Amino acid sequence: MTLINRSLVTIDDLSNGEMEATFALADEMSADIKEQFGLCKGKIMASLFFEPSTRTRMSFEAAMHRLGGSVISSFEANATSFAKGESIADMAKVVGHYADIIVIRHPWEGAARVVADYAGIPVINAGDGGHQHPTQTLCDLYTIKQDKGTIKGLKIALWGDLKYGRTVHSLIFALAKFGADILFYPSPGLEVPEHVVKKLIKEYGGKLTHYKSADPAAKDEVSNLDAIYVTPNSPHQLAMMPNVNLQVELASGVDALYVTRAQKERFTAGEGLANRYPVVDKKLLQGKEFKKTLVMHPLPRVDELAYELDADPRARYFEQAARGVPVRMALLAQSLGAKEMPVKDEEALPRPDYPLHRQTFGIKCANPKCVSIQPTEQKYIKPLFRIVDHDPLTMRCVYCEHGFEPRFIASTEWHEGKVEFKKYHRADSYLVKKIRPEHLLVFNSEEEAEALGFKPSHYSHE
Amino acid sequence: MTLINRSLVTIDDLSNGEMEATFALADEMSADIKEQFGLCKGKIMASLFFEPSTRTRMSFEAAMHRLGGSVISSFEANATSFAKGESIADMAKVVGHYADIIVIRHPWEGAARVVADYAGIPVINAGDGGHQHPTQTLCDLYTIKQDKGTIKGLKIALWGDLKYGRTVHSLIFALAKFGADILFYPSPGLEVPEHVVKKLIKEYGGKLTHYKSADPAAKDEVSNLDAIYVTPNSPHQLAMMPNVNLQVELASGVDALYVTRAQKERFTAGEGLANRYPVVDKKLLQGKEFKKTLVMHPLPRVDELAYELDADPRARYFEQAARGVPVRMALLAQSLGAKEMPVKDEEALPRPDYPLHRQTFGIKCANPKCVSIQPTEQKYIKPLFRIVDHDPLTMRCVYCEHGFEPRFIASTEWHEGKVEFKKYHRADSYLVKKIRPEHLLVFNSEEEAEALGFKPSHYSHE
Amino acid sequence: MTLINRSLVTIDDLSNGEMEATFALADEMSADIKEQFGLCKGKIMASLFFEPSTRTRMSFEAAMHRLGGSVISSFEANATSFAKGESIADMAKVVGHYADIIVIRHPWEGAARVVADYAGIPVINAGDGGHQHPTQTLCDLYTIKQDKGTIKGLKIALWGDLKYGRTVHSLIFALAKFGADILFYPSPGLEVPEHVVKKLIKEYGGKLTHYKSADPAAKDEVSNLDAIYVTPNSPHQLAMMPNVNLQVELASGVDALYVTRAQKERFTAGEGLANRYPVVDKKLLQGKEFKKTLVMHPLPRVDELAYELDADPRARYFEQAARGVPVRMALLAQSLGAKEMPVKDEEALPRPDYPLHRQTFGIKCANPKCVSIQPTEQKYIKPLFRIVDHDPLTMRCVYCEHGFEPRFIASTEWHEGKVEFKKYHRADSYLVKKIRPEHLLVFNSEEEAEALGFKPSHYSHE
Repeated sequence: MTLINRSLVTIDDLSNGEMEATFALADEMSADIKEQFGLCKGKIMASLFFEPSTRTRMSFEAAMHRLGGSVISSFEANATSFAKGESIADMAKVVGHYADIIVIRHPWEGAARVVADYAGIPVINAGDGGHQHPTQTLCDLYTIKQDKGTIKGLKIALWGDLKYGRTVHSLIFALAKFGADILFYPSPGLEVPEHVVKKLIKEYGGKLTHYKSADPAAKDEVSNLDAIYVTPNSPHQLAMMPNVNLQVELASGVDALYVTRAQKERFTAGEGLANRYPVVDKKLLQGKEFKKTLVMHPLPRVDELAYELDADPRARYFEQAARGVPVRMALLAQSLGAKEMPVKDEEALPRPDYPLHRQTFGIKCANPKCVSIQPTEQKYIKPLFRIVDHDPLTMRCVYCEHGFEPRFIASTEWHEGKVEFKKYHRADSYLVKKIRPEHLLVFNSEEEAEALGFKPSHYSHE
Repeated sequence: MTLINRSLVTIDDLSNGEMEATFALADEMSADIKEQFGLCKGKIMASLFFEPSTRTRMSFEAAMHRLGGSVISSFEANATSFAKGESIADMAKVVGHYADIIVIRHPWEGAARVVADYAGIPVINAGDGGHQHPTQTLCDLYTIKQDKGTIKGLKIALWGDLKYGRTVHSLIFALAKFGADILFYPSPGLEVPEHVVKKLIKEYGGKLTHYKSADPAAKDEVSNLDAIYVTPNSPHQLAMMPNVNLQVELASGVDALYVTRAQKERFTAGEGLANRYPVVDKKLLQGKEFKKTLVMHPLPRVDELAYELDADPRARYFEQAARGVPVRMALLAQSLGAKEMPVKDEEALPRPDYPLHRQTFGIKCANPKCVSIQPTEQKYIKPLFRIVDHDPLTMRCVYCEHGFEPRFIASTEWHEGKVEFKKYHRADSYLVKKIRPEHLLVFNSEEEAEALGFKPSHYSHE
Repeated sequence: MTLINRSLVTIDDLSNGEMEATFALADEMSADIKEQFGLCKGKIMASLFFEPSTRTRMSFEAAMHRLGGSVISSFEANATSFAKGESIADMAKVVGHYADIIVIRHPWEGAARVVADYAGIPVINAGDGGHQHPTQTLCDLYTIKQDKGTIKGLKIALWGDLKYGRTVHSLIFALAKFGADILFYPSPGLEVPEHVVKKLIKEYGGKLTHYKSADPAAKDEVSNLDAIYVTPNSPHQLAMMPNVNLQVELASGVDALYVTRAQKERFTAGEGLANRYPVVDKKLLQGKEFKKTLVMHPLPRVDELAYELDADPRARYFEQAARGVPVRMALLAQSLGAKEMPVKDEEALPRPDYPLHRQTFGIKCANPKCVSIQPTEQKYIKPLFRIVDHDPLTMRCVYCEHGFEPRFIASTEWHEGKVEFKKYHRADSYLVKKIRPEHLLVFNSEEEAEALGFKPSHYSHE
């Protein structure tokens, strides 16, 4: 399979083999960057940035220019004035006629999915709210791989805002796919979202282990390791986490420490930094477990990463940024069909094939930043979920990938117009497995079900 | 005549033959878009957008890139911060030294005219307030022509905001020039401005017919045809409108329905939507008169055009947008001298040659959005009008093309310094035809005339 | 010495010979602009504008496109939203990996110096607050030279806002280097900053002469020549200003009058225009001393330069703007190594080699707009000064070049940990010359010195 004409919305859109092929092409392009000029001559990249960005946008535009292509660019401080109330699907269709490829950043989660669905040309997600930022992840992996030779079996620590950092969310899944172990050091209140952890456990066969801090008084300090998630070192089966304690776990050393800034622009109203945001500096990194640790950061940094580290031989954050150009050149050249790379397709884990559930009334995605619930987008998007689990019943939004567990269910098959048959049940009823996805109705509360004319079944309180 | 080095400010700047030649070149360019790369190599297009826009700007920039040219681009949410109080004439002169062609969008009506007057290079109007948007009109006509083969004799309905929609204003005159019949379906309060209707009747030989709704209770509903304007099917003479009723008129079918959104950003303070803005959906289009109707829209749409029509075979709005690239390529290539097309010059109607009137004191253009009355521009622009009628005396601003009828007149020839000769007359006096344009003085009120030292003549109350 | 890979932060970065070589190359490029296309093929210019600008940015971008190069561009109304709290050093390092050359405009004085220090690629200052704008100066000099053949010995008058006009500050030093005489006509309250005048006298061997107006009542009127600064016509020695009066001085004619607008966006709170800002119009220029005066303006103008002069044969301001393209092409081509010009290195004045003083605690630069005192930049920048004089002791900030005179001094050598030795002295003490720059400590007040543990010496009140 080649990348030609394919979109990159989440990191799951690329197999391990395709990522490796992209890194190989990035190597080739770095080796003689001048040689690549002309590869994409006559092609147009539309660069649509609905959130402030310098780094990512300029990196993509530089990549396209290095390939000899052209760029049409749009960037504004806020999405509203940009669009005069237009839906992003309309925008996508129109720009799809102007350009050969679209790069989009948007504050709504799932926006890049919608653009990819409607544009008719390949679309690259350059960040959609707190959801994903897959090309940053490619730069991150490429940087690690250049130093360590492989990703598999490495111990990678993620530090800081693990809740809103979209780069972190993309990275977690990619690390899991490649079989790295992941250590979470969140700033208190900014832990990895539950739906991300659940997906890791369920789809990547991981195991979550919590470590209690030795010193109870220090429990809110992020510098005490709070949780470790370990992906299986041998894919296709669940790796059992050895019964080690924190000291043992760290003794073998951390291969990379990935620091992130507090994504304050995505904090909800009233949400602040409960504690001092942790700072990574020379003192923190003086332990022997950090001796060979690559210090990484997607940038921009604010205060969380001390300047004194810039000259430290372990610092890799400016290399990460620098690699944005060859990695994005490699991606663009492949999507535009200017280059084709042989792909060893050794997908680490088979992706699950969850049934789709199109909800035509009732429940919408509960994520307020999801593209599917925005007024301009509801005109054409119907809520669409995957049923990712039955015990408990768990739906995952196709757009923003947030998961939720509805409390009550019903089936469209049971009542064909006869009011006396319109019954609803608790979601943990045995019936949930008997309803086909296309017949499923879900509700968050009894009121919601009753407002739609359903009555409690005998079993609804079982 | 060729288009080389010529500006396109209003749709009147192009003859029918030139528009047809542009469509032929657009066909040629669409047929092999890659082949055009290099045509404008080394040429620079300055893209100056003083109002938010994605579509039009990106379409122009994509067109220039497809031709292998370069783009320098400037776009800001508001014009003030852009210009530090600079006049647009100064801006035009400066940018005229940087680029080979300018594309400008500006909120002031007549701004593109000023830029064309001062830049020293060809200028294309990409929308000046509510005045005109001629390249959108070319895309519209090109879309109709591709389906219907011709414009002449078609019945085209215009729907929605016919007051502020600049695309509509350009389109009306173009349709008239090509000999189409135009049906107006304005949203109540958003009717076609009177000066546009008057120009249609006077210069294009049209006839306006009002239809009373059969159902008086429905009179404010836009879905009842409110007015029909018919341009002469045989040019050069006034076509008499046959004495048909609404049903008969519609029975022969509508060839295209051109929907527009409410241009709320141009509403004056206090102006709202008196009624629900009409929505075009499948239900509305189910009558047999709409069976072969092309559904068009300049986009962006908000709520006025239902998404359910996207899959309808009559929908053409995304094609309109898509055609923006080849049409603009054809225009740019011609203006920059990269392509020359043979033109069959069969101008439908000879353009009237109205006398110019430069008003050195007193009356200014009454349109608050006219470029000529803005503080930065009054430093070098003197009010300039064409005298388009004597009965009643009607002046038309050269910049924004708004018309107005002054109530009183005088002549500079009658009083050469002698106060007792400084007399003013009513504008409907027989004297109006005796004053040469260069001697004419006009006033909106007796107070205005008297403040300037004029006294009422014996005839001023005749 | 060639310009390849060199930055242009202040006009002092270029020798006279290098400026002449750039003008010669601009001539060559103007002569056949099409011929230059392809010279910088495959090169990328990053255009980073943190302040509104159309003119300068577009001129640079046009220049790069005329050379066949590519541009990645970033421009926003305000720097804050742009950078998410990132330092400009970080930004510079990152963009340094994307592009081959950076052009930057920033409201902080000294910002371009920082970018040049960190980017790793050549950087061109396109305006840093009220500090400098060296490429505008090149356009100005080039324009004068094309008319007058030389700069040396000319009499150039500077008019208007000489306090905040960064174009004026760059120009003053360049004129001095080339041996022109400079006449200052500031608007009252907007005089040339003292640190600029001092630098002129000290480093360029000039002499300042004040002229009293003949009419005392008119003393606040700018149209009375307020001051004349004359650079030595024979370099390397101080030219004595002949004891002439204003009439005699002007009788020989003014070669160029350089008008500037009030840079209101840089006025401090409460600072307004004390008097009417002076207007240059035909009436003002009717005297015989202005008969051959080139009327210049860096544009944009607001009200200070009458439109009636546009058609005057002495007007050169649109030529200045037009020359922005070939001059910037010449600079870019040299910095990028696409062209190398022979340089007659006849530097007018040897640049002084002032000792550097790195202040590790205590005094910071007193200029509130200096890059070195901004919160995001203090994380990595330590205050850095040159000691430019000992009598009185004068420090000049390396970044913004503002000068100041500290009132008290001490030496780190005198007290090595022993509190009883920590003494401070008055800055005019004979001791100031005995302290080596690396040992110098300076204080603005006795309180400041005492807060740091220093005690007054016996000599501190001498």
